Amino acid sequence: MVKYERGLDATFQALADPTRRAIVAALSRGQASVTELARPHRMSLPAVMKHLRVLQRAGLVTQRKRGRTRRCRLTARPLQKAEAWISQYRAFWETQLDALERYLAQTQTEESAWQRNSSPPKQR
Amino acid sequence: MVKYERGLDATFQALADPTRRAIVAALSRGQASVTELARPHRMSLPAVMKHLRVLQRAGLVTQRKRGRTRRCRLTARPLQKAEAWISQYRAFWETQLDALERYLAQTQTEESAWQRNSSPPKQR
Repeated sequence: MVKYERGLDATFQALADPTRRAIVAALSRGQASVTELARPHRMSLPAVMKHLRVLQRAGLVTQRKRGRTRRCRLTARPLQKAEAWISQYRAFWETQLDALERYLAQTQTEESAWQRNSSPPKQR
Repeated sequence: MVKYERGLDATFQALADPTRRAIVAALSRGQASVTELARPHRMSLPAVMKHLRVLQRAGLVTQRKRGRTRRCRLTARPLQKAEAWISQYRAFWETQLDALERYLAQTQTEESAWQRNSSPPKQR
């Protein structure tokens, strides 16, 4: 249980940064070298490697040496666990957003009725 | 777009703590006062209020004064957005976890076959 909690701490912490989320997005399309990952962000290699270390500590990314380059790979499990935690509250947010939608629809209906009643009658 | 990114930063940051996740869980069952939220954690009120401020900054919790107490309320939208971001990668993790399952099943089949072949033939 504690391990799972720690895992969620590390996963959410890792995802709380736009560069790290972009790395996750890139790796979901396939493995990549550190240089390939750095390119779109115009960041120095050490800066990207710092982000990669956070992702690795969270178990979201693994690295494997292939020849002279290191290939990075996305790991599925932490993402799945984070999604499982959030989606426990799906019923809650669906209810709340439905209520908001109903409220807005009702307000609009009342406003239309008010406008109809306050406008001059149409000629027959 | 930037606002959304900032929103995700703040949401994931807020969820990267077990006490704050427990507060989210408690508020998903209904509104609560700060005192009610503090009770199960055996924390001081200022400590709980610090966590609540993080949740408020992320837009996950709103507070309203009712008489002499402040009622806290969970807000659906940031949770829904965080879930939407993670679930973009559902296809990725389902493929990876399926591949792992197939690999384990195949390894087990091969191991069983090896054990059958290496055990003495049954008497008829």
